[in-house]
Amino acid sequence: MSDVAEDVLLSASELRARLVAVGEERYHHKHPFHLLMHEGRLTRGQMQAWALNRYYYQSQIPVKDAIILSRSGDAEFRRNWRKRIVDHDGADGQPGGIEKWLRLAEATGLTAERVSSTAEILPGVRYAVDAYLQLVSQRSHLEAVASSLTEMFSRDLISLRLDALRQHYPWLESGLVYFTARLTQAPEDATFAFDWIVSHACTRKEQELAISALKDKCAILWAQLDALYYSYVEPGWPPPGAFQMDTA
Amino acid sequence: MSDVAEDVLLSASELRARLVAVGEERYHHKHPFHLLMHEGRLTRGQMQAWALNRYYYQSQIPVKDAIILSRSGDAEFRRNWRKRIVDHDGADGQPGGIEKWLRLAEATGLTAERVSSTAEILPGVRYAVDAYLQLVSQRSHLEAVASSLTEMFSRDLISLRLDALRQHYPWLESGLVYFTARLTQAPEDATFAFDWIVSHACTRKEQELAISALKDKCAILWAQLDALYYSYVEPGWPPPGAFQMDTA
Repeated sequence: MSDVAEDVLLSASELRARLVAVGEERYHHKHPFHLLMHEGRLTRGQMQAWALNRYYYQSQIPVKDAIILSRSGDAEFRRNWRKRIVDHDGADGQPGGIEKWLRLAEATGLTAERVSSTAEILPGVRYAVDAYLQLVSQRSHLEAVASSLTEMFSRDLISLRLDALRQHYPWLESGLVYFTARLTQAPEDATFAFDWIVSHACTRKEQELAISALKDKCAILWAQLDALYYSYVEPGWPPPGAFQMDTA
Repeated sequence: MSDVAEDVLLSASELRARLVAVGEERYHHKHPFHLLMHEGRLTRGQMQAWALNRYYYQSQIPVKDAIILSRSGDAEFRRNWRKRIVDHDGADGQPGGIEKWLRLAEATGLTAERVSSTAEILPGVRYAVDAYLQLVSQRSHLEAVASSLTEMFSRDLISLRLDALRQHYPWLESGLVYFTARLTQAPEDATFAFDWIVSHACTRKEQELAISALKDKCAILWAQLDALYYSYVEPGWPPPGAFQMDTA
């Protein structure tokens, strides 16, 4: 992957290049489910399945961030990181990311109650999201922070997606506020996390652990879409108890 | 599901009927990947992918059983339950279930080193197996024991599978010792666990928790096969870093 000898500390720009290479190979912008979505080839039922399942990921983000916050002894870090919890849970009566995701799910035609119950999410999606909580709980604090670096890649994906959703699924328009908010939130979060990793990964070994944590996070996002594709695209067999698309 | 009023304790035979109904609906004997396997329609590469991935499940069984054992204050329970750890880890120089599974993987043409490294297993399989460890760690001891009741159904599946494997994949013959051992081990384990659940689920609510735990365990087995099917059958896209079948 890199021309730098195995035991030499990477510069900030070398580290960034390694992380970006992980994203190019493994971030879920390349997943077949997203490719179909962006080409306008998903049905309303498939978009419902996506919104309903992805809600579980959204719902656990503040839990994930609270775990990361709880593991830091540095008030400066904690003050910065808590922004993420505010962004997702909302403040002063303003909806946060979870509430906005429910608006997206409603725009697909599902009720907020049905989605937020999480009763019909795919087990494979649940396991992947729960693996994310395990990652940030059990591995080093550095790796937990690094696993959030997928935000380095999310702005480009969301920009592309907003255009694609407006073009191909105009009935979703009222639900797009989640994504417009993330266009500015994600890059802010990514900048803080990247700078923090640069200054706290003090050995090459720690830098490699950060890179691996980002790979593992990419796998967690990817596996959720595998489960969606298997159950709702091809062969299209959701397991007993999971969300079933209307066959109408 | 049942004709018994919601707050009435089920008899042992009613409870058994409820558990059997869960198995009929949700146990992985009905999964499309197994159906293809038993019809002889999987390639050697697909059988390799199955053996390699399922190894991770096998490797975590003694860990799962040690967690369940560690949560019991009853020496009688612990004496019974430790049989499972012995069966899987081996004793007196005799191979246990994990070692026997490696023989199966070798019969497909993989090396034991490659399989036991777990470097190439599907993230979706890893998350499902890790969810099993979470289940037995975090839910009640009763639910942890109940999640093992899939063994009530495994003898029939293994009998069918042994016939199918011998007929359709004769090159696997040297690796079948895992299954022949499980033909007697699984029913013994299931009998103990079922009797223990009958005598320790003292309220209908506890009985329902046991039934739910069995459903959740079925979902864990099912999701592993979903991941295999998605990556190696249809559409056949393993994620970056996972086992790739020879295209020869």
